[in-house]
Amino acid sequence: VKLDDEIIQKEFFMQIAMVQDKIVPVEQLDPAYFDRGLYFGDGVYEVLRSYNGKIFGLDEHIERLANSLAAIEITGIDVKEIRGRVQEAFDTAKVPNVKIYFHVTRGSALRSHGWDNSLKPNFFMLISDLEEDPELKAKGVAVSVYPDIRWKRCDIKSLNLLPNVLAQQDATRKGCFEAIFLNDAGFITEGSSSAFFQIFGRTVHTTPLSKSILPSITRKFVLKAAANVGLEIVEKSIMPNQLKAVDELLLGTTTKDVIPVVEFDGQTIRDGRPGKYTKQLIEEFRLFTV
Amino acid sequence: VKLDDEIIQKEFFMQIAMVQDKIVPVEQLDPAYFDRGLYFGDGVYEVLRSYNGKIFGLDEHIERLANSLAAIEITGIDVKEIRGRVQEAFDTAKVPNVKIYFHVTRGSALRSHGWDNSLKPNFFMLISDLEEDPELKAKGVAVSVYPDIRWKRCDIKSLNLLPNVLAQQDATRKGCFEAIFLNDAGFITEGSSSAFFQIFGRTVHTTPLSKSILPSITRKFVLKAAANVGLEIVEKSIMPNQLKAVDELLLGTTTKDVIPVVEFDGQTIRDGRPGKYTKQLIEEFRLFTV
Repeated sequence: VKLDDEIIQKEFFMQIAMVQDKIVPVEQLDPAYFDRGLYFGDGVYEVLRSYNGKIFGLDEHIERLANSLAAIEITGIDVKEIRGRVQEAFDTAKVPNVKIYFHVTRGSALRSHGWDNSLKPNFFMLISDLEEDPELKAKGVAVSVYPDIRWKRCDIKSLNLLPNVLAQQDATRKGCFEAIFLNDAGFITEGSSSAFFQIFGRTVHTTPLSKSILPSITRKFVLKAAANVGLEIVEKSIMPNQLKAVDELLLGTTTKDVIPVVEFDGQTIRDGRPGKYTKQLIEEFRLFTV
Repeated sequence: VKLDDEIIQKEFFMQIAMVQDKIVPVEQLDPAYFDRGLYFGDGVYEVLRSYNGKIFGLDEHIERLANSLAAIEITGIDVKEIRGRVQEAFDTAKVPNVKIYFHVTRGSALRSHGWDNSLKPNFFMLISDLEEDPELKAKGVAVSVYPDIRWKRCDIKSLNLLPNVLAQQDATRKGCFEAIFLNDAGFITEGSSSAFFQIFGRTVHTTPLSKSILPSITRKFVLKAAANVGLEIVEKSIMPNQLKAVDELLLGTTTKDVIPVVEFDGQTIRDGRPGKYTKQLIEEFRLFTV
């Protein structure tokens, strides 16, 4: 990978780069050091997984990618070509259950907030073995809460993820699997990297889609599974104090699909074991993946 | 620069990387491809400049860096050492007027929201010739407005800058130099990469420091300059409609210090020329830099 002449020269004169404690000639640096994804988080990403040799929800992820790219006006890259790259690398891997991460950034350039439309986007993908943990589904997990300090366009799957990182670390410290965001008005939005569902009787509640949450692919399939098993769906945000009456809680996340939640912010839910509808949803979801 | 064994191996098995449209062996990738700064914007930065061979406000920038690092709990890097690196690279440059950009990220690792405290932070710095533009100070600039869609910790100078990028691009498209953020309540917060000041009579207004704006170093020196020239200072947010009565507007930014604003959201301010106090502030600021 060679650094573009534009970055080294432009109308430029003098540039000194330092990586860690060493002065490095700018022309020896990988273009990754000039990636707008690094300077600004100026890019979008997707995470997919495969089940038994088949990528799950590829069309949906590519469609969401197209929406994210359009929302921040990254052009000059064809999502159909990206779809092909994902399939090609997955076929090369020859491993049935993998996690696929990729991002598209606006490109590498000298640091300047505004961008030049001639920039060529950067694509990076990493496919790795999926770490399965059957205990999660069997026993369920605890979740903590964290203030939703994110920006106002959480519908864009961007690389600006520092609040999510801080929320997850806070959860880990509290011995929890995930952090659930609470907005300024005290309502639940979603998890730091998951959709969140509450079951009251035969009704599944979840936050409605808006600019405040990610249009989660897993959310879509969980709601489809819920309809299939005859549950009523209500897309409405609730507050933690309404969880006193909740019967079951669950998370939806690409790499692990449905995960039962048995503890919320220190409070055990019912008998502290995965609920019956959650178990049905896990089974119903599994049918989508075979 | 060698990729850490931890990234390549860990408890890992199979990993396939793709850069642009090429499958690349993971072990050949620069650690920059695994920088948490790239995946999450998990890092902080500073921009400094020198005037005639002397770095301006180095202590203040290093102090703010320490605050940013502490706020997101990046440890394992000594700000005194960073101060030394900045000075060393600047001395190597031997150019009197430069722009100094550097960032510190939490380090390179396999992508996972939570972090390991043993991670070694990454440091990257680029020093380049400063592009001076005397026209900006002589004629002033136009600014546009943009919704403040940023996260709720704008006091941290983090790499999560996508809203700032979108705001700047919007301004550029409108023929403006800078975008001024308006929050949900309609109040001015600050510029996308600048502090913003309004002068009414002999009073300078600017947004008070809080988690909603950056503790700008230039802001601090502009207020000091304002006090020196006998202006009253009021730290209070105002709304655009209050600008009907404004006498002068100005921006403060590290690389260009004081910039007169002669047009706000399409409305010309007074006679459309830099105001008298703004000119005094430019002169007063210059005294700090010699």
